[in-house]
Amino acid sequence: MEQPAHKKRIYTAALVIIGDEILSGRTQDANLAYLAKWLNVQGIRLKEARVVADEQPAIVEAVNACRARHDYVFTTGGIGPTHDDITVDAIAAAFQVPVVLHPRAEAMLRAHYAERITEARLRMARVPQGADIIENKGSAAPGVRVGNVFILAGIPTVMRAMLDSLDGALEGGDPVLSRTVGAHVAESEVAELLRTVEADIEGVQVGSYPFWRQGKIGANFVVRSTDVERVNAACGAILDGLRALGVDPVDGEL
Amino acid sequence: MEQPAHKKRIYTAALVIIGDEILSGRTQDANLAYLAKWLNVQGIRLKEARVVADEQPAIVEAVNACRARHDYVFTTGGIGPTHDDITVDAIAAAFQVPVVLHPRAEAMLRAHYAERITEARLRMARVPQGADIIENKGSAAPGVRVGNVFILAGIPTVMRAMLDSLDGALEGGDPVLSRTVGAHVAESEVAELLRTVEADIEGVQVGSYPFWRQGKIGANFVVRSTDVERVNAACGAILDGLRALGVDPVDGEL
Repeated sequence: MEQPAHKKRIYTAALVIIGDEILSGRTQDANLAYLAKWLNVQGIRLKEARVVADEQPAIVEAVNACRARHDYVFTTGGIGPTHDDITVDAIAAAFQVPVVLHPRAEAMLRAHYAERITEARLRMARVPQGADIIENKGSAAPGVRVGNVFILAGIPTVMRAMLDSLDGALEGGDPVLSRTVGAHVAESEVAELLRTVEADIEGVQVGSYPFWRQGKIGANFVVRSTDVERVNAACGAILDGLRALGVDPVDGEL
Repeated sequence: MEQPAHKKRIYTAALVIIGDEILSGRTQDANLAYLAKWLNVQGIRLKEARVVADEQPAIVEAVNACRARHDYVFTTGGIGPTHDDITVDAIAAAFQVPVVLHPRAEAMLRAHYAERITEARLRMARVPQGADIIENKGSAAPGVRVGNVFILAGIPTVMRAMLDSLDGALEGGDPVLSRTVGAHVAESEVAELLRTVEADIEGVQVGSYPFWRQGKIGANFVVRSTDVERVNAACGAILDGLRALGVDPVDGEL
């Protein structure tokens, strides 16, 4: 007998963002939200993310903590040709393996740069021993897969091209479905309603996300589950409950 | 004799973002970059950030790991009146203290809501025992300080109002200064130059941030140090080095 959707094994992932430029506030990360949605389509949930400095001990610690407890770990950033690109070395250290030149990555870079190949450019063919490469259409420099760790570029267009080539390649479970109800109501007035709905319908999560726009307060209530019938039952209960409180909700996001 | 600026004690902070809505990709975090810049003005460096699920064990673990190794820890999110707002309980658990009603926070909420006060609204006066409150002009619900942990709202306008009231209140060191040089050049062509400049001038960090816009590649080279003379010396060396390579750099960000 098949397990009900909300009781099946959940596949999880972590993201380690390697980036002094994020921690200094100079650059706004644009990869987390994209990866989260991409993972959900694969049936995998992003359960945690860490932003670490461009320092080997910080990267090693974060990657080792995350790969021990999640099915998949993704890293972004630090895989270019310059001295501050230390991700490959750090992840080799995390796996306690040496760094080697990947023959196919080297061939791709040599074909791309021809006589303009340099030592700095060949750095982009360096991988932890035992790793596979992740192709991308965006540039000649590949991503790297070692064990359950996927080393991706930090530049969003390149990172997305690498994810494209992983589409459908990872084992996952059921994607999380979500549906949103919005209302111009203080969330403190509906706290009991939300708590009751989440407690009554097994396998759903109800999130409440307040906003304050142009002088009007309100909130969006997001119901998530892998089971569409439970999602719809919970949304129906929230819509009914809000109307019973004299609130006029919308079936969708405000 | 005063220590040179680049050898003084460095004050560090971590940010723990509590948010299923960030991990699902539904909401883009807008607090990290703001906090990073605010901290830098206080002479404190944001050294790591973690995004964790709305689950007590995940919050406890992240907060305990971060508070042991940084001068300050900030959390955002999960301090409203609904069932998914579990930050105060989680941080009380991290400190192994009970949750109590803070008398002044309770008084503020009762004054604000008058006869409209409810149990859900009073939740916002709950704090870990021994905590102080952090006032904010944005709403009646305060932030909370317990030990070196600062519990802030997730809504960016409210989070910023809470930081306003902490302005100048935290002990810090010298702020990190930065200056940027941009050029339309492949970073692989200048990797050796950047490595040499960083190695030659003690106390500076040189970051290389490539971009690819409208068919043109380039990179920004960001020099950081607490010492303005070292920042300027490194930028001068990079500008000279780029020109020697036949590149036409700009003294600023591209």
